[in-house]
Amino acid sequence: MISRYSRPEMTAIFDGRSKLGIFLDVELAVAEAMADLGQLPKDEVATLRRRADAEREKLLNPARVEEIELVTKHDVIAFLTHVEEICGIEARHLHVGMTSSDLLDTTLAIQLARASDLMLADLEKLLTVLERRALEHKETLTIGRSHGIHAEPVTFGLKLAGYHAEFARNLQRLRLARAEIATCAVSGAVGTFANIDPRVEEMVAARFGLTPEPVSTQVIPRDRHAMFTSTLGVIASSIERLATEIRHLQRTEVREVEEYFSPGQKGSSAMPHKRNPVLSENLTGLARIIRAAVVPALENVALWHERDISHSSVERVMLPDACILVDFALFRLTSMMDKLVVYPERMRQNLDATFGLVFSQRVLLALIEADMPRQKAYELVQKNAMRAWHEGQPLLELLKADPDVTAKLNQARLEALFDMGVHTKHVGTIFDRVFRR
Amino acid sequence: MISRYSRPEMTAIFDGRSKLGIFLDVELAVAEAMADLGQLPKDEVATLRRRADAEREKLLNPARVEEIELVTKHDVIAFLTHVEEICGIEARHLHVGMTSSDLLDTTLAIQLARASDLMLADLEKLLTVLERRALEHKETLTIGRSHGIHAEPVTFGLKLAGYHAEFARNLQRLRLARAEIATCAVSGAVGTFANIDPRVEEMVAARFGLTPEPVSTQVIPRDRHAMFTSTLGVIASSIERLATEIRHLQRTEVREVEEYFSPGQKGSSAMPHKRNPVLSENLTGLARIIRAAVVPALENVALWHERDISHSSVERVMLPDACILVDFALFRLTSMMDKLVVYPERMRQNLDATFGLVFSQRVLLALIEADMPRQKAYELVQKNAMRAWHEGQPLLELLKADPDVTAKLNQARLEALFDMGVHTKHVGTIFDRVFRR
Amino acid sequence: MISRYSRPEMTAIFDGRSKLGIFLDVELAVAEAMADLGQLPKDEVATLRRRADAEREKLLNPARVEEIELVTKHDVIAFLTHVEEICGIEARHLHVGMTSSDLLDTTLAIQLARASDLMLADLEKLLTVLERRALEHKETLTIGRSHGIHAEPVTFGLKLAGYHAEFARNLQRLRLARAEIATCAVSGAVGTFANIDPRVEEMVAARFGLTPEPVSTQVIPRDRHAMFTSTLGVIASSIERLATEIRHLQRTEVREVEEYFSPGQKGSSAMPHKRNPVLSENLTGLARIIRAAVVPALENVALWHERDISHSSVERVMLPDACILVDFALFRLTSMMDKLVVYPERMRQNLDATFGLVFSQRVLLALIEADMPRQKAYELVQKNAMRAWHEGQPLLELLKADPDVTAKLNQARLEALFDMGVHTKHVGTIFDRVFRR
Amino acid sequence: MISRYSRPEMTAIFDGRSKLGIFLDVELAVAEAMADLGQLPKDEVATLRRRADAEREKLLNPARVEEIELVTKHDVIAFLTHVEEICGIEARHLHVGMTSSDLLDTTLAIQLARASDLMLADLEKLLTVLERRALEHKETLTIGRSHGIHAEPVTFGLKLAGYHAEFARNLQRLRLARAEIATCAVSGAVGTFANIDPRVEEMVAARFGLTPEPVSTQVIPRDRHAMFTSTLGVIASSIERLATEIRHLQRTEVREVEEYFSPGQKGSSAMPHKRNPVLSENLTGLARIIRAAVVPALENVALWHERDISHSSVERVMLPDACILVDFALFRLTSMMDKLVVYPERMRQNLDATFGLVFSQRVLLALIEADMPRQKAYELVQKNAMRAWHEGQPLLELLKADPDVTAKLNQARLEALFDMGVHTKHVGTIFDRVFRR
Repeated sequence: MISRYSRPEMTAIFDGRSKLGIFLDVELAVAEAMADLGQLPKDEVATLRRRADAEREKLLNPARVEEIELVTKHDVIAFLTHVEEICGIEARHLHVGMTSSDLLDTTLAIQLARASDLMLADLEKLLTVLERRALEHKETLTIGRSHGIHAEPVTFGLKLAGYHAEFARNLQRLRLARAEIATCAVSGAVGTFANIDPRVEEMVAARFGLTPEPVSTQVIPRDRHAMFTSTLGVIASSIERLATEIRHLQRTEVREVEEYFSPGQKGSSAMPHKRNPVLSENLTGLARIIRAAVVPALENVALWHERDISHSSVERVMLPDACILVDFALFRLTSMMDKLVVYPERMRQNLDATFGLVFSQRVLLALIEADMPRQKAYELVQKNAMRAWHEGQPLLELLKADPDVTAKLNQARLEALFDMGVHTKHVGTIFDRVFRR
Repeated sequence: MISRYSRPEMTAIFDGRSKLGIFLDVELAVAEAMADLGQLPKDEVATLRRRADAEREKLLNPARVEEIELVTKHDVIAFLTHVEEICGIEARHLHVGMTSSDLLDTTLAIQLARASDLMLADLEKLLTVLERRALEHKETLTIGRSHGIHAEPVTFGLKLAGYHAEFARNLQRLRLARAEIATCAVSGAVGTFANIDPRVEEMVAARFGLTPEPVSTQVIPRDRHAMFTSTLGVIASSIERLATEIRHLQRTEVREVEEYFSPGQKGSSAMPHKRNPVLSENLTGLARIIRAAVVPALENVALWHERDISHSSVERVMLPDACILVDFALFRLTSMMDKLVVYPERMRQNLDATFGLVFSQRVLLALIEADMPRQKAYELVQKNAMRAWHEGQPLLELLKADPDVTAKLNQARLEALFDMGVHTKHVGTIFDRVFRR
Repeated sequence: MISRYSRPEMTAIFDGRSKLGIFLDVELAVAEAMADLGQLPKDEVATLRRRADAEREKLLNPARVEEIELVTKHDVIAFLTHVEEICGIEARHLHVGMTSSDLLDTTLAIQLARASDLMLADLEKLLTVLERRALEHKETLTIGRSHGIHAEPVTFGLKLAGYHAEFARNLQRLRLARAEIATCAVSGAVGTFANIDPRVEEMVAARFGLTPEPVSTQVIPRDRHAMFTSTLGVIASSIERLATEIRHLQRTEVREVEEYFSPGQKGSSAMPHKRNPVLSENLTGLARIIRAAVVPALENVALWHERDISHSSVERVMLPDACILVDFALFRLTSMMDKLVVYPERMRQNLDATFGLVFSQRVLLALIEADMPRQKAYELVQKNAMRAWHEGQPLLELLKADPDVTAKLNQARLEALFDMGVHTKHVGTIFDRVFRR
Repeated sequence: MISRYSRPEMTAIFDGRSKLGIFLDVELAVAEAMADLGQLPKDEVATLRRRADAEREKLLNPARVEEIELVTKHDVIAFLTHVEEICGIEARHLHVGMTSSDLLDTTLAIQLARASDLMLADLEKLLTVLERRALEHKETLTIGRSHGIHAEPVTFGLKLAGYHAEFARNLQRLRLARAEIATCAVSGAVGTFANIDPRVEEMVAARFGLTPEPVSTQVIPRDRHAMFTSTLGVIASSIERLATEIRHLQRTEVREVEEYFSPGQKGSSAMPHKRNPVLSENLTGLARIIRAAVVPALENVALWHERDISHSSVERVMLPDACILVDFALFRLTSMMDKLVVYPERMRQNLDATFGLVFSQRVLLALIEADMPRQKAYELVQKNAMRAWHEGQPLLELLKADPDVTAKLNQARLEALFDMGVHTKHVGTIFDRVFRR
């Protein structure tokens, strides 16, 4: 992924140095497990471990391994040769009974588990910010919109609570996705343990916090990675939903919120209204890139027989990229929501722009309750609503002036109907559902 | 979905009659909950329920509702009008304080939960068949292949155990996916419970085995449906993997298995070898159609504000289609695997087609163990392996005739190295992992 | 496709009766070509043609063919048996030297060519409507928006001209896509013409307005159908773009246009502002479904060897569906744009809502031209722009009252700078590019 | 894209230095066009050009521009500042009347046109190789397969001719795709030419071999890039088809071709049969990554109003990546096909593996022609075919020994029926179609 959309902590998980580090850790863990089981000489393995620890910096040298790979044309053999060069003869106890995929797939599992941990932490931070902003605006009235058209009032905090609930689901999904890919395979050429003891796999798995893969067919089955990637696709779509909300609310005509714009920051011109929601637009695009990883991951599942290697190029490119982008996007989204500038008075203006029409249904119900036939009540309300809309007058005033209405509902009753409280009275109940779980 | 790829039990869940039935059940449940809470007259609601039960057949009449919809241009209003026509004035107690989406989304949740139950049962049946066939062929030797090239031996049962493990994961995923979409919304126009008691939602949810949606914004959030559909996409990819395996094994040159071909069934010509794996080819195509639902479901998440209605057409078409196809494909796959004709002797022939080369690594290790330097051992094995391959002679015989080899390994030792047992000795361990969980 | 999103003329192209009709026409054309080449008895083929013409109604009976297929398990054989039952022994001259795919793929080509013709006509109608509306609103000023934020003025006609240009490109693309799939294969089992004369293919192709497929490998290569489907995907995305524009313009806060709402049509409530852009929302969803056909079509390309049959199920479902939806969506879009209600005065209000800030850049340039240093000019304009925006006053008035400004630009010059004409002066040039090509 | 899958010539088109070079060329071309039209002082623009040419190396300094961008937070402004620093005051004649997208989108058009030229050259080279190999194997008999099952004979050259025809279509498609994106926009903030003469756009377009965009709405419309990317997706799928063919043909059981394996190259072990088709497997994976760019490109079309910036991140990442991968994959495929090792004798063995059953249909037709009733003939052929298949005997010998057969067809006639010539007699006709166009 290009550096513009990458954060160093995530990028580091997938760089060449980290990969060699995990290679080394896994190979040593296998050798030590075999030594513990009496299948390799304990002292030689211990010697190897000491040397590897002492020379770790020298060992984690991707450039040198690539040099060797130019000759061997095989990345795992190149790595093992490199270790032997530095650690000496005892390195022959590495990779015994293993196949390359045992090392590659277990390493990938460790990388993806670490990447998941970063993304889980990102989600936790986002949730913290969303909760704080939701509580801050728990009572901030704003119009709810369906089809882009004003519907009935909600609060801005309630909107945010909805996003919180959605990202809390994503947190839970990502935990499950992490479990999907955190498995370990040390089972040999076609997964039969022909030359390696199944207990070794269990011991190595335990050491890295992984689960042994029940049946690996040279590779860890790719339905796991497909499920993992699909989960990232869903998270990306949730990011897009919140980004789209902000983009809408920042439109010139709506202007209920704005992405933070630093005091010294110059607008694009002498036009002070020209503050563009560039972060949320960017997040919308990033969501598209992340989602693009889903279909290839699904296509990767049907490998031929015990494995073919078509998945490899896809995963080399798209798995790191998807993780890097999810991390970057969550971080950007969190910061954006943290500093989001909210304009409650503007929300109120927009709410009032329909002259109280959002209360028309309540007036209708009150008239019916006051024994006016439904059809007559409907026509009466509609007539006044139409006038309010077309003449730009408050519906409440029109109703107060209509004798057919006031015959049934007095001024106090009418005013009570136009009480925003009805729309906010259960906000606390909903907040309890979201924030007290 | 076209009838060629549909099974009636699944289709019925999504047909017009079932939908009206659920509409009716949900609306009555809401009214009864309100009556229980003292918010509607208990006796009138009871009368309504009696009438609705008595006239159920007449009520579940999609053609009539569509007729009314031509006038009202609104499906929910058409339904309510229809109920009022038949059940009388008490029908006014239906839909009180609700918005159309409360009804539509809760109904969709019930349909998808039922569809999930069918698919879960399908998966259980597939697992039963896979387990039976795996046990049957636990010891049936066959060649494992990587890159489409012979690697080392496995058993056919072990292959099937791997698929069993994969579909067991899919079962678990589908259970989670079911929980994702089995939620209930009865919260009014923009989800604020402005005109309905939140307890009603809880009571209705309990009645249908659903969970109340923590925050519905007129609609149940679509990240749930995206996750559900993604899970179907993963299942489809697993179906494709097994289908691809069968297609490969049935190739003329491989011919280790064949889809069942009924005795009377005519081949496409007078060519008896022309038995095409048409079921598994068909499953491959169906997997592509099911997966096609994933991206639109992800695109559906970012609805505008509290909701727009762009998701509706996508879901009308693609959610039933995806469920119908998964059900059909799992059923077809189960039946195909149940009757699959397996040719163990042919597997053995293919295994022997590389003249024992699959044992070359073991010979190498034995020579090294017998103190031959690795490089010398490698060259010795390679020389004999090359002859075996190019002259078509058994490697074992060549080795027995090579004095450099026999100087280190006697005949008995050599024969012991060519023992298939090493590849099958841990099959039991793996089976325990898969079938004893 | 469900009937809600289907138009009969397109559906008819893909129904069972039409398919049998094309089957019959293609088979007869092959027989007649062979008779013309002296490879079949001319009189018997003529007899067959007479009978087939006379019994055409009886022949086009999908139910009967399906009945036979239950026995033969092969759709083409079932069809041929059915013809023989009705037309007698001369029917043996049908299908000589052909393979089923010759018939199926040539039939599909004819169906897709017809479907293309319908869609091309749809596009022509849309272009006509877009041109009319563009000319109607050639001078209707409205604000151009980037990032959803007001930028500089355009005209509504110019917006529509842009969509016209885009759909004119789509027309051209669809013509190319039609040519891609309008090919004919009559080349036998694996495309070698082993049992059929290549001239027959050419004669049949000419008869149906098709091109002979240069190399068919039993099937017509699927890169053609992938290109065709991708083109539909691009058209769908253009539909989405125009639909999204209308959805934005109909938002409560913007309200510059509205989808037509019939006088008698009831709103969803007593809220007259609640006119939802349901058609364009629906089109947005339909675009997602159409696009979903693209990936499976791409996945269909890599058939195994001379062909496998995995593409068949995908195409049975998705090719008709995609064509039906494109036709439906174009028709709906055309009608929507035809009747779209446009509010020029509201456009003007929105344009004025930024107090003339859209002219700030021109004032800046004029001050510089009048020899004010750029930095000073920028600060001067910015100061006044900020006041205009925050105090809600017209920028022009503020400038007129600022002595630093009037020292450089007199009243007349200032007023001239605030002339909308600069934004419309080249509309004619652009219209010439679009409508005079 | 990671360097493992990149070639320098393509990467260079998209690197920071090239981009600045095109930026400079476009800005200077605009200034010179304006000078030619008398809208800028000719001598000052000439001075600017001289300085820019003299300091070109210093100007193409992405690191310095990025430094400035850290302050300006705007890439185009940073570039212009950088030019002014180096070229002095005359640089104020750059970017007059332009908007950033004019520069960015025209630059992108130039980059994509250059990338297209590289890919077109790649396709030409592939076609040359495919033609040579097709001619080489014009008469090399091999079995044609449908459903993975042996069907009837073809030649290996004919297979390759089919791929040639497919890639020739891709060449034509890519030419059209190049034309789609090779347009130029120099039309100002919202495409109205408010501050720039439309003739400038035409002059600049001509200079870079581009077409003026008829209507740009600040940006060049993204349906063009969607069509371009879709075309790359189709090319990727064709690459996958040929790669899949090679993977199949290299299977251990089939072994009709092998990817070239250098003499010194070590296999993965002492198993000489273990030559894996790693290049074609890799190409299969790369095809998946390329295709992944299609959906985001389609999603990029529906930008909001005159433009939003959500497409930008998608294009920054996925357009270069897709071009780089197509170039890399075509190059790898060409080299692979160039050196592909073909085993005609193995093809012949596989052809014979069905004991002459591929001729059964011809025997059937001959018996009917010799006046045996079809049903009797069918049973007679089938009986012998079944024996041939199950007993592993040549069908021809069995027929010669069957008196029911020889009563109708003598030995010479029978042998004539088993002539491969029937399957190759029209290969020349097909080659003429492909290679003489």
